[in-house]
Amino acid sequence: MEISFELSELVALTSPIEIRGDVDGPITGITSLLEATNRDLSFLGNAKYRSEVESSRAAVIFVPEDYKDAPASGQCLLVVKQPSAALALVCARVEQALWPRPKPGIHTSAVVDPEAKIDPSATIGPLCIIEAGVTVGASSHLQGGVFVGAGASIGEDCWLASSSHVASRCKLENRVRLHAGVVVGSDGFGYAFLDGKHEKVPQVGSVVIESDVEIGANSTLDRARFSRTVIGECTKIDNLVQVSHNVIVGKHCILCSQVGIAGSTILEDYVVLGGQVGVAGHITVAKGTMAAGRAGITAATEPGITVSGMPAMPYHLERRLVVLQRRLPELFKQVKSMSEDLEGLKKASAS
Amino acid sequence: MEISFELSELVALTSPIEIRGDVDGPITGITSLLEATNRDLSFLGNAKYRSEVESSRAAVIFVPEDYKDAPASGQCLLVVKQPSAALALVCARVEQALWPRPKPGIHTSAVVDPEAKIDPSATIGPLCIIEAGVTVGASSHLQGGVFVGAGASIGEDCWLASSSHVASRCKLENRVRLHAGVVVGSDGFGYAFLDGKHEKVPQVGSVVIESDVEIGANSTLDRARFSRTVIGECTKIDNLVQVSHNVIVGKHCILCSQVGIAGSTILEDYVVLGGQVGVAGHITVAKGTMAAGRAGITAATEPGITVSGMPAMPYHLERRLVVLQRRLPELFKQVKSMSEDLEGLKKASAS
Amino acid sequence: MEISFELSELVALTSPIEIRGDVDGPITGITSLLEATNRDLSFLGNAKYRSEVESSRAAVIFVPEDYKDAPASGQCLLVVKQPSAALALVCARVEQALWPRPKPGIHTSAVVDPEAKIDPSATIGPLCIIEAGVTVGASSHLQGGVFVGAGASIGEDCWLASSSHVASRCKLENRVRLHAGVVVGSDGFGYAFLDGKHEKVPQVGSVVIESDVEIGANSTLDRARFSRTVIGECTKIDNLVQVSHNVIVGKHCILCSQVGIAGSTILEDYVVLGGQVGVAGHITVAKGTMAAGRAGITAATEPGITVSGMPAMPYHLERRLVVLQRRLPELFKQVKSMSEDLEGLKKASAS
Repeated sequence: MEISFELSELVALTSPIEIRGDVDGPITGITSLLEATNRDLSFLGNAKYRSEVESSRAAVIFVPEDYKDAPASGQCLLVVKQPSAALALVCARVEQALWPRPKPGIHTSAVVDPEAKIDPSATIGPLCIIEAGVTVGASSHLQGGVFVGAGASIGEDCWLASSSHVASRCKLENRVRLHAGVVVGSDGFGYAFLDGKHEKVPQVGSVVIESDVEIGANSTLDRARFSRTVIGECTKIDNLVQVSHNVIVGKHCILCSQVGIAGSTILEDYVVLGGQVGVAGHITVAKGTMAAGRAGITAATEPGITVSGMPAMPYHLERRLVVLQRRLPELFKQVKSMSEDLEGLKKASAS
Repeated sequence: MEISFELSELVALTSPIEIRGDVDGPITGITSLLEATNRDLSFLGNAKYRSEVESSRAAVIFVPEDYKDAPASGQCLLVVKQPSAALALVCARVEQALWPRPKPGIHTSAVVDPEAKIDPSATIGPLCIIEAGVTVGASSHLQGGVFVGAGASIGEDCWLASSSHVASRCKLENRVRLHAGVVVGSDGFGYAFLDGKHEKVPQVGSVVIESDVEIGANSTLDRARFSRTVIGECTKIDNLVQVSHNVIVGKHCILCSQVGIAGSTILEDYVVLGGQVGVAGHITVAKGTMAAGRAGITAATEPGITVSGMPAMPYHLERRLVVLQRRLPELFKQVKSMSEDLEGLKKASAS
Repeated sequence: MEISFELSELVALTSPIEIRGDVDGPITGITSLLEATNRDLSFLGNAKYRSEVESSRAAVIFVPEDYKDAPASGQCLLVVKQPSAALALVCARVEQALWPRPKPGIHTSAVVDPEAKIDPSATIGPLCIIEAGVTVGASSHLQGGVFVGAGASIGEDCWLASSSHVASRCKLENRVRLHAGVVVGSDGFGYAFLDGKHEKVPQVGSVVIESDVEIGANSTLDRARFSRTVIGECTKIDNLVQVSHNVIVGKHCILCSQVGIAGSTILEDYVVLGGQVGVAGHITVAKGTMAAGRAGITAATEPGITVSGMPAMPYHLERRLVVLQRRLPELFKQVKSMSEDLEGLKKASAS
């Protein structure tokens, strides 16, 4: 399958403020300024790459209004308000071409319980398993090999990739996207230690994924002990993330890859957690908290704070400590030398 | 699907020491004291939440014997020895109602090799793949889309969620629970560096999961190089945990989410590892060792010790170092000031 | 299924330089020197275990040329150039016996689009899903329950375990091995923050896995934003590893379990990352860099360097800082005492 655009299509799609230069023939790729060939589209998304425009061989480049230079020969600069947004428009068009919406209906190889309610506009791909009492809303697409347990509900316009798993009685609202291998509704990790054994505490709650949430490949979200684990609307979760039982994640949060959140913790809205961040259980991470990669949040945070380190502390303090730690060899040496001087002075003073 | 209990059923199930107050109508939910409505059951599981009982709107609350206050109007307090245990009894009943044991038999869509031996009381769900020489014991339940490789053996009363994978020749004893996406028996990560290339060292051992082990979603357990990787009985493993080849995990251990254990390491019984803990290869973690979240265990530990930090050290030492590290800016300032004073004194003394 | 070798077979397979002693009956297991019984094969792979040979009950032991001692009674020492390599030959023979190559052909339960091109020598196991435009090369084996999305291409002699997922338009070259649950080609994690919302940036690139790459269970590799995420030939990736969009991993790299690499980062050839290492985005990790477990690489590295710690620094510096950090309590005490002495001297000097 090939990408191919005429310049006129790009212009129609992105309504540039100004068109500088012209190209000959179609555009057949999209790539960065440095990698582009004379058949590629590229863009200046960040002022720091400005110098790369001049040397780029790209056929077409989206540039911002304050970029005043002329194009190379056979090159076209499309001046737009937001080059990144213009590119996103083109990408969305490409996405539609690459992955057209499948036909509605249930594949003959899917195993669908007669008591499940599948909207006629939904697509149930091959080898899906849909248990009793499930509902799947309008235009939702289960790619293939998807499991939806008894009584679970999938809203409208959701997309569930292969091997994704929505356990019994969990709920996905609308436009939720689950990548391959996501597990929604595995049991929370709860045991009571009785007579030398860890006895399982039944986990009979559920998981609710609100609208416009996207969850990356092989991430796992545990059902609550007896209430609900919640992912707030518009929150985006990367791959291999762990959300434990009874966690409440707010709206518009970003959880990067390999983040782990222990049980019963609350993330308020607009929290951003970098890769491999860990969050302790039973705490509240306040609205707008940002945590650098690998931070370990062990206590409640202040709204809007940026933290880093393990245990997490204000970012600027942690940066300062990192610098000072590297100066420890020098400090130990200095203190040793001072101690000798001091002893000398004490002796001199005593004599 | 709905939870619904009469007060009389709760009483019959939990045999309270004392019943204070009464309720009108059925109980239709279970939740925390603060979230409960007048149709919910709740409980006082931890003395620190005692003040929440008074303000809770819960219809029924399990309280301990030393809780002496009266119920609100229309509320019933059930006095029991262990409120958590009483709740667990109710949850177990709910669990049975929500997830009744499926009918025995092999779903017509499952692909089962004629040389596999499936106990007639076992349930093989839709779209499972069961290869030659597999045995599945009495009352075990493979939910759907489960893979069991040639010669593997599944004991009695096991539960394997969708997309779980038990590779060839691995063994699960009895009452083992695998959540969705668990992989038992992937190849160990072993290569020999020869002539500038990493050559694969065949991994022909297996994995043995002893009885009463539960393993969380998307965790991975590698087969041994040529002997066995072992998970000891009653051990509980959370989601996204990595157990490398030739690791021996003892009995009654707890491995929280995102723990990683490198090859050939031994965990003795009753080891507890917090979330994101890493354990180096070829070491022994002694009986009863507890590691705080994110600890990095790089050397053998003493029995019963609690460790934290990276590299892991005794917990109290690590806590102390964290405090002192935060005082480094002050220390550097103090040493600088002392150094100036000292120079002054040296000059004065020299003159 | 049983392992069984006659001594003569082992000799034929490994061509020893010298044969010391003899055994009676077949060899039925392979294990370490300490665990071996008189029916097992073992080996001295590392000089540090030399003393274990003498006490080992193994029937047959591969030893290096500089091992001069005599075997025990009923024991045979096979002297070879590289005991590990000899063992690998035996293991490979065992592997062939345990997991014989399956018959070519497409299982009747697989769902294969008529527009897919499957080489007649390939094996498509049960319940695989193969979409339109896919190609599968000669001798490749899809174990069962494997998903291959539209337009993806699988080279020759590849092996894809159950529940592995190759998304649309991604490419595997030859002899690539994917363990269970691997996801190749999930969307990169890219959003633009517009008007208080994280808007999805379409991810229309792909993933290319070059020849002789092996990828461990449940690892995830995201497709590029609009170009390609690449894993270089002969690179080996362990379980639960995250490779973000636009990452370029060089040839002959080793990525241990739970490593995470953020977007657009480049790993040059022969990079080795220990378990749980994190690598920041948009940096270059130079050729031959080695990172100890749990290191956090936040900036470009020098070729051939060994780093550790978070943020990563040269290994020897980090080791030194760890030692000094443990001496902080002593340092604070010393400085306090010096400060008092200094005050005393200042007072004395002022009087």
